[in-house]
Amino acid sequence: MEAVVLERQKELTIRDIELDEPLGPHDVRVALRTVGVCGSDVHYYEWGAIGPYVVREPMVLGHEASGRVVEVGSEVTHLKVGDRVCMEPGIPDPNSRATRLGLYNLDPAVRFWATPPVHGILRPTVVHPEAFTFKLPDNVSYEEGAMVEPLAVGMHGANKARIRPGDVAVVSGAGPIGMLQALAALAGGCSQVIMSDVVQPKLDLAASLGPITPVNAAKESLKDVVMDLTDGWGADIVFECSGNQKAAESVFEPLCPGGCVVLVGIPGQPFGFDVTKSQAKEARVESVFRYAHVYPRAIALIASGQLNVKPLITDTFSFAESVQAFEYAAHMPSTSVKVQIEVAKD
Amino acid sequence: MEAVVLERQKELTIRDIELDEPLGPHDVRVALRTVGVCGSDVHYYEWGAIGPYVVREPMVLGHEASGRVVEVGSEVTHLKVGDRVCMEPGIPDPNSRATRLGLYNLDPAVRFWATPPVHGILRPTVVHPEAFTFKLPDNVSYEEGAMVEPLAVGMHGANKARIRPGDVAVVSGAGPIGMLQALAALAGGCSQVIMSDVVQPKLDLAASLGPITPVNAAKESLKDVVMDLTDGWGADIVFECSGNQKAAESVFEPLCPGGCVVLVGIPGQPFGFDVTKSQAKEARVESVFRYAHVYPRAIALIASGQLNVKPLITDTFSFAESVQAFEYAAHMPSTSVKVQIEVAKD
Amino acid sequence: MEAVVLERQKELTIRDIELDEPLGPHDVRVALRTVGVCGSDVHYYEWGAIGPYVVREPMVLGHEASGRVVEVGSEVTHLKVGDRVCMEPGIPDPNSRATRLGLYNLDPAVRFWATPPVHGILRPTVVHPEAFTFKLPDNVSYEEGAMVEPLAVGMHGANKARIRPGDVAVVSGAGPIGMLQALAALAGGCSQVIMSDVVQPKLDLAASLGPITPVNAAKESLKDVVMDLTDGWGADIVFECSGNQKAAESVFEPLCPGGCVVLVGIPGQPFGFDVTKSQAKEARVESVFRYAHVYPRAIALIASGQLNVKPLITDTFSFAESVQAFEYAAHMPSTSVKVQIEVAKD
Amino acid sequence: MEAVVLERQKELTIRDIELDEPLGPHDVRVALRTVGVCGSDVHYYEWGAIGPYVVREPMVLGHEASGRVVEVGSEVTHLKVGDRVCMEPGIPDPNSRATRLGLYNLDPAVRFWATPPVHGILRPTVVHPEAFTFKLPDNVSYEEGAMVEPLAVGMHGANKARIRPGDVAVVSGAGPIGMLQALAALAGGCSQVIMSDVVQPKLDLAASLGPITPVNAAKESLKDVVMDLTDGWGADIVFECSGNQKAAESVFEPLCPGGCVVLVGIPGQPFGFDVTKSQAKEARVESVFRYAHVYPRAIALIASGQLNVKPLITDTFSFAESVQAFEYAAHMPSTSVKVQIEVAKD
Repeated sequence: MEAVVLERQKELTIRDIELDEPLGPHDVRVALRTVGVCGSDVHYYEWGAIGPYVVREPMVLGHEASGRVVEVGSEVTHLKVGDRVCMEPGIPDPNSRATRLGLYNLDPAVRFWATPPVHGILRPTVVHPEAFTFKLPDNVSYEEGAMVEPLAVGMHGANKARIRPGDVAVVSGAGPIGMLQALAALAGGCSQVIMSDVVQPKLDLAASLGPITPVNAAKESLKDVVMDLTDGWGADIVFECSGNQKAAESVFEPLCPGGCVVLVGIPGQPFGFDVTKSQAKEARVESVFRYAHVYPRAIALIASGQLNVKPLITDTFSFAESVQAFEYAAHMPSTSVKVQIEVAKD
Repeated sequence: MEAVVLERQKELTIRDIELDEPLGPHDVRVALRTVGVCGSDVHYYEWGAIGPYVVREPMVLGHEASGRVVEVGSEVTHLKVGDRVCMEPGIPDPNSRATRLGLYNLDPAVRFWATPPVHGILRPTVVHPEAFTFKLPDNVSYEEGAMVEPLAVGMHGANKARIRPGDVAVVSGAGPIGMLQALAALAGGCSQVIMSDVVQPKLDLAASLGPITPVNAAKESLKDVVMDLTDGWGADIVFECSGNQKAAESVFEPLCPGGCVVLVGIPGQPFGFDVTKSQAKEARVESVFRYAHVYPRAIALIASGQLNVKPLITDTFSFAESVQAFEYAAHMPSTSVKVQIEVAKD
Repeated sequence: MEAVVLERQKELTIRDIELDEPLGPHDVRVALRTVGVCGSDVHYYEWGAIGPYVVREPMVLGHEASGRVVEVGSEVTHLKVGDRVCMEPGIPDPNSRATRLGLYNLDPAVRFWATPPVHGILRPTVVHPEAFTFKLPDNVSYEEGAMVEPLAVGMHGANKARIRPGDVAVVSGAGPIGMLQALAALAGGCSQVIMSDVVQPKLDLAASLGPITPVNAAKESLKDVVMDLTDGWGADIVFECSGNQKAAESVFEPLCPGGCVVLVGIPGQPFGFDVTKSQAKEARVESVFRYAHVYPRAIALIASGQLNVKPLITDTFSFAESVQAFEYAAHMPSTSVKVQIEVAKD
Repeated sequence: MEAVVLERQKELTIRDIELDEPLGPHDVRVALRTVGVCGSDVHYYEWGAIGPYVVREPMVLGHEASGRVVEVGSEVTHLKVGDRVCMEPGIPDPNSRATRLGLYNLDPAVRFWATPPVHGILRPTVVHPEAFTFKLPDNVSYEEGAMVEPLAVGMHGANKARIRPGDVAVVSGAGPIGMLQALAALAGGCSQVIMSDVVQPKLDLAASLGPITPVNAAKESLKDVVMDLTDGWGADIVFECSGNQKAAESVFEPLCPGGCVVLVGIPGQPFGFDVTKSQAKEARVESVFRYAHVYPRAIALIASGQLNVKPLITDTFSFAESVQAFEYAAHMPSTSVKVQIEVAKD
């Protein structure tokens, strides 16, 4: 089949690749429709590796996907041919201890699309387990369906935070994940989000998405803004989405006593964790690794209108333009958030 | 001062009553603006008692209130004269074990407005502790401020449910508390609410408030609707707000495995609790008694636009019309939800 | 193989029965050593049914089991031939939504030993999935291993209660489950247990097991004892293990504000649930259906000496005496707790 | 009254000091009996300061205390003259937001004994609020009563960990707090503790206290021992009690997926927090600042025999020997754990 193949660092081609995928009894075959380009896809493209994951063989990219079911296995019960769906890209070992506990994202045996040596889905079809394939309601488009994957990270972060209705949240970092974290936090019960970054156009976009107060950290003190807005109490939750070391070291400053920090971004180096600052507020610090059990929840919030991802889909390319799409994504303007590739029309 | 006094069952007058209220160091004096009429106020008016609480002496009615600060005690730090505020009507003993644990609503020593023998606030001014008086943001009106009290019940219910973003909730009972429970559930992270009642106009109003699916229990099976909408899984949360015995006995039917039931309404008699049904789903059953710590959260959600109580304020009377307001509230049409009395203009 | 077969109500025989059990790749074959007799086994023996579960074909009894691994499937990694083990009797569908969420005990497709039409394990060998077979440490005997199953119910109840260290617990009902619930509560962090029953010898035995205060409900008021021991505050947790309707209706009386009730026992009829009593304390009411994820925890507590089940193993029969064992268990003296059958010697 | 006064760094005297303490209506006056010497007391003695807290005026030392009630205020209801008690040393502002939420230990206005400028209790009597004074059961000695304060830290850590029955815990650091953390963890539901330190005599003492596996980190790999004991899964909880930077940086190594780290010790500098390691296990990292609401729980566990602090009381001095006691505590052998001063005999 014809796929978007990363041959090696910086070398991306659209070409035929042989991918033999037999259909198991609990599997469905899905014809891809829309695939989002993720920062990790771009990173593999530009660097040929992410940490210990090195692209040693040609690998199909892409893991944010929606499509239509074209074939179902003999034991499939909830899906049928013709269903519009989106898919979770990571498949755990169902027999691992983590999976049985419900923590399948922490199973070291997870096979995740476009993570070497597992192929991604910038291609016509893929075989996937029914349990990780989710039907899209009629009022949720393929484009929105392909946004469920990055949104799932924010949903998982919101779950970890254990938001109580009316919480005030800080989101540091106004990249795609920060934006989706803010939307998930608001849909998940927060009354408002205070968002910090140093790139003004990103903050301007964020401010248009809902009750989000932008803070340009190059000009203002995040702590001061938060304390002012909360009568000196602090924010209930701080979502660290920037991956910036300085930002990570400052998470306790705008936090309220008994508050929660969720580490979503990944600083390149360990950051300096000041135990006394954490203890003075008895902060609870949670970590997020991908997500688990949130796809149906994300879809439900989009379908009911409680969460709107459309303003974040800023750029669309055709399948034939896939290489250009990656080049664009690698150097996109600060007003762009999510680049998507239309693999096929419905 | 001139107040709305319940002399005895069915006898309500506007007349002078002597209420000597010295201002303590941690107190503020508030001039009342808007007071909502609650079902309990009406019940005292019609029956002269609620369960063990019997009106034996003339008592001022009203406990859903907003107003303006006119005097502050010597130790008051967060409020000043002129602040627009709303007030929590129950004041606990700060030294009780329940209060110290943060469960102040469960302190048996709580003094609660318009609960005999404590006077309510259908009158010009009241002295109240700063700690239970909350500043209204500029964009929150007195009318909305007076809605915070009944909304607080729904907020507390939403807290107890520990909503996870995207949960599906059932609300049984489309009275004022059911409506506010639905709004709190949606603002608190639910993707949708399925609301059941037998009075169609109430359901029609509910359906206009957000992603709320009305179920007329006289014509449809609540369980069937829920199972259909959730692919056979069930609702994550069932808020029982009807106080109806049959509804209470059916709470486990639309519930998902591992789901939560929140008992908000109060059936007149014990209901038949089927342990096997509860166990088959390992339901968690929570109970709500008034509320605690939710006023700032409710105000924040109203102020940020995440929760809109305005459509529920259906009828307004002047202070001079207070007796008519009670008569109206006692026999109000099914299209009415909340009756408010304007005690004074700002 | 030779097994203890319930032919029909009241007719129990030891005889040959053909049970063809192929060994799957993730399975182990276990030679049984010790099997406990559970109240449900006795109930099937005496009545031929439990509620909707009716014995229509001859069925092997027994589900509380330990043994030794005699064969392992090709994909088995944690167990080897010769390992001493105990086994969880219920096997869920790994693809069900409940199982994936970690709630495998709530999967309606669970196949549970000695629950019609699934055979139990009073027989020489059984094939079982590795994931539900647990290695016994050297210092845990087969007899203790066969106690893990009923203890697991108490462990699950203790989990649901979310015990905080030092909690005071009430256990109502001093049968085998009540006794094991008390031990699990103490090992799980409770400082003391107050146990109520009307049979004095059971209470005497309970009082010998640890810091357990016996209350003979025929002579004393449970509420009075609890309030006296807790300075008027009440117990943090009430485990209802009696299945008695009156006891179930009284669970809120000895409870503290904000406390938790765990429904372990199963009253034959719905009990009268007084919402006002539940609300006055904002009780959290949890339900228990079997157990999930607790076998390793129960074994660890036995192995480390934090929990001692030995005093509860009061009667042992040989495999040849199995029918007598059931007769004895059906009419056992109040000083007996657990009857076990030694299927084979090691 | 005659008190143990720290005049300035290194200068400790027993001398008269005037402390006028009027008895408020909610207060009791307590005659001190036993006072433990805490590391912080010794630190003030040796350095004259702890971080920002500098001894500028002569200050009475001591905050781990038990005694007997000799006078009660007019509103005191739960205590009477003659009661044997122990006392919580920190008194918050009852009107602060943190206190009302139940987080009184996080109230910045807390007044804490022997923290400048607040005097401690190495003196004959002290006036204290009833709400922070706890009656000792008959079978709990004054010596044990004075251990409740340091034990409370471990109890609070155990609370934060939300132990589930049977959890395996690591405690890093075998000082007094580490030892008490281990005891609290075991009494709070853990099946076993694995304790690491580099001082063998401390580890030997720890190993004698219960199911505690000592690991000499100078000779063995903590991670290896834990993985071996948990079949490669890891420990459910890691209590960091050493305050050692290296130990803090290694907390994720022996942890299981979904596990919890509790930061009890205080490294002198920020430690390097590796987000990827935290995320790979989705660790929950909790912090402890003193304690709240645990005194009654600690006393209950001691009284019922579930937790035994006596082996940790290794050295006792008379009041007249107080200066020697501090000198001893400042240079005590590794076999000593807790030094106590007998202020008066009963």
